[in-house]
Amino acid sequence: MSAEEPILLTPGPLTTSMRVKQAMLRDWGSRDEAFVALNRHVIGQIARIAGCDESYAVVPLQGSGTYAVEAMIATLAPTDGRTLVLANGSYGRRIVEICRRLGRNHDVYEVPEDETHDMAELGRRLAEDPGIRAVAAVHCETTSGLLNPLQAISDVVVKAGRALLVDSMSGFGALPVDAGQLRFAALAASANKCLQGAPGVAFVICRKADLATSKGRSPSLVLDLEDQHRQMTTDGQWRYTPPTHVIAALGAAIDELVEEGGSEARLRRYTANCDTLITGMQELGFRPVLPRERQAPVIVSFFEPQDAWFDFTTFYDLLRQRGFAIYAGKMKQGGTFRIGTIGAIDPQTIAAFLVAAGDVVSEMRRGH
Amino acid sequence: MSAEEPILLTPGPLTTSMRVKQAMLRDWGSRDEAFVALNRHVIGQIARIAGCDESYAVVPLQGSGTYAVEAMIATLAPTDGRTLVLANGSYGRRIVEICRRLGRNHDVYEVPEDETHDMAELGRRLAEDPGIRAVAAVHCETTSGLLNPLQAISDVVVKAGRALLVDSMSGFGALPVDAGQLRFAALAASANKCLQGAPGVAFVICRKADLATSKGRSPSLVLDLEDQHRQMTTDGQWRYTPPTHVIAALGAAIDELVEEGGSEARLRRYTANCDTLITGMQELGFRPVLPRERQAPVIVSFFEPQDAWFDFTTFYDLLRQRGFAIYAGKMKQGGTFRIGTIGAIDPQTIAAFLVAAGDVVSEMRRGH
Ligand SMILES: Cc1ncc(COP(=O)(O)O)c(C=O)c1O
Ligand SMILES: Cc1ncc(COP(=O)(O)O)c(C=O)c1O
Repeated sequence: MSAEEPILLTPGPLTTSMRVKQAMLRDWGSRDEAFVALNRHVIGQIARIAGCDESYAVVPLQGSGTYAVEAMIATLAPTDGRTLVLANGSYGRRIVEICRRLGRNHDVYEVPEDETHDMAELGRRLAEDPGIRAVAAVHCETTSGLLNPLQAISDVVVKAGRALLVDSMSGFGALPVDAGQLRFAALAASANKCLQGAPGVAFVICRKADLATSKGRSPSLVLDLEDQHRQMTTDGQWRYTPPTHVIAALGAAIDELVEEGGSEARLRRYTANCDTLITGMQELGFRPVLPRERQAPVIVSFFEPQDAWFDFTTFYDLLRQRGFAIYAGKMKQGGTFRIGTIGAIDPQTIAAFLVAAGDVVSEMRRGH
Repeated sequence: MSAEEPILLTPGPLTTSMRVKQAMLRDWGSRDEAFVALNRHVIGQIARIAGCDESYAVVPLQGSGTYAVEAMIATLAPTDGRTLVLANGSYGRRIVEICRRLGRNHDVYEVPEDETHDMAELGRRLAEDPGIRAVAAVHCETTSGLLNPLQAISDVVVKAGRALLVDSMSGFGALPVDAGQLRFAALAASANKCLQGAPGVAFVICRKADLATSKGRSPSLVLDLEDQHRQMTTDGQWRYTPPTHVIAALGAAIDELVEEGGSEARLRRYTANCDTLITGMQELGFRPVLPRERQAPVIVSFFEPQDAWFDFTTFYDLLRQRGFAIYAGKMKQGGTFRIGTIGAIDPQTIAAFLVAAGDVVSEMRRGH
């Protein structure tokens, strides 16, 4: 770590390995067979990570994660019924904003940012309202770091015969995602979170049958997943210029994931990172916002100490000088900050961070 | 050049310098001050290249060039009138498709792919039809390599009091673009053409006053340039995760452009590339599709020889084995292929390519 090139304890972009970055040292012809083969590899591996059978397609998309979420809603959210959005943070609310923009009918079931939804209540809403044709849910709510109970949500939604649309942006690659178990209609994720690639490409995993019936539904050309998929399966090429270097980085990142032992092994490392972080921060007097059982090992929100010595900007700057970039809070209630536990980092990295944080706390207390 | 890592004679992604690629060997915190400063540098330099005064904003956007074109139409094409699209190739027709998708009223003035539009006719259409509020034009029509007369188009459109929306994807950075002269309302371009960056980020240069009146007009959240600009000018940060590595590459690419002597110097190099290519290819018996005065020094379409020995796939593969990737044709008429003259290449690169092409032609003729 260095002040020049800090370790990123952020939820993506995050610290990637040198191998991932070095994969970007090559220019690829976007219509060249070598690049077509690289894409096929990346798409095949994502399908494998998600436990997809032949009924699912992986549709990559240029842009950030939000582009994939908007493309999923634009292409796949029903037009002959409503989508019920489960919100408990800003990413759930962003899905609501996307539905509103696209003029896609929707309802919102919102609970506080440190709580999960009541499954009985969800079941009741679906039973009582046949107009709800789909449910949209966020896997890890990065706003707080909260883990939503995706399998339980799926059980209710699928049993009720509705389509499940998932934003698994900060979960995919580490949190368990198995298409056979979760039976989602679509799931959006991106290269630069738990997959540990570089930002610039995202993807939606969805049912081929749903794509087939969604032709022309997207009001956007670039975000039309049906068109993107159809053209890509015709000749293996992207409709519009792909971010070739970023895709090469994703290829390397996925190879590293496989070598690490897949998403189970990655989840173990992230969990060790998260445990080390929470224990160490508690020792320094910081309190996590969420109870451990609702905490995803992805990013942890802490309460800002209410003592006079603490000020987030100073805390950030002093850590930054010591080679660590942490993250501002995003929860509605304010007075929180976040520290990410994902990326090419391990418990030793977190231990080094904790030493730096201990120094910074002492310095701030002394300085006051 | 090598078969493993060929020189890309393609219109983007293209061959970038090692310095541009090496700029991607660092992870940036997307909310970190260092990255905010990098963005400010990139945006400021793009504004300078385009000769913008304070009335213009540069709005960067995650995604490929088409995303910027769609964002420009979605955010800035009028909803209280029609947009007249000048088409003479597939990128002009793509603007038409975008208007259709977005439900934005439009007309099309289309001419053959090797011709430019009649300025008198354009003036007549605008004079006769007050419902046309904007004109959309393509700068270099990469379909053929044709240079549209952007200044002449601007003169007619601006004189008639209409807004000019430009796709300068394959022109910006080399072809002259001066906001003071062209007086466009908006111009879309991308990192990975004449700016010689990596693909994954694009931008729209547009009038701040037009952004101010376009709030909420875009049916897409991610493609909303007004929202993107407003939030970015608030705190210097992107709304959604930016492709940090690609932006760092663009920063390095723009520094190289400045060191080369700006877009005038780059245009001279590309013109030398193009002249060398056309002369050499003609000596090998290939005929360019466009007359020299309508040819942009960006990409050249050649007729496929109608002789029995020629077959594009074989020609491509044999050149590829020798370390050069060329490009398939895209013109409606068929029977053409393309060779790009942009990127981190010079007339010596083209000379080396011509030696390889000469070998390949001999081999194909012999083999037949
Ligand atoms: C759960 C979730 N959804 C969506 C997004 C948006 O992704 P992006 O910033 O790449 O657009 C994020 C980003 O952190 C996220 O964590
Ligand atoms: C004139 C023009 N417009 C638009 C585009 C689309 O850009 P992209 O492929 O990056 O989406 C291109 C790409 O070559 C182009 O040349």
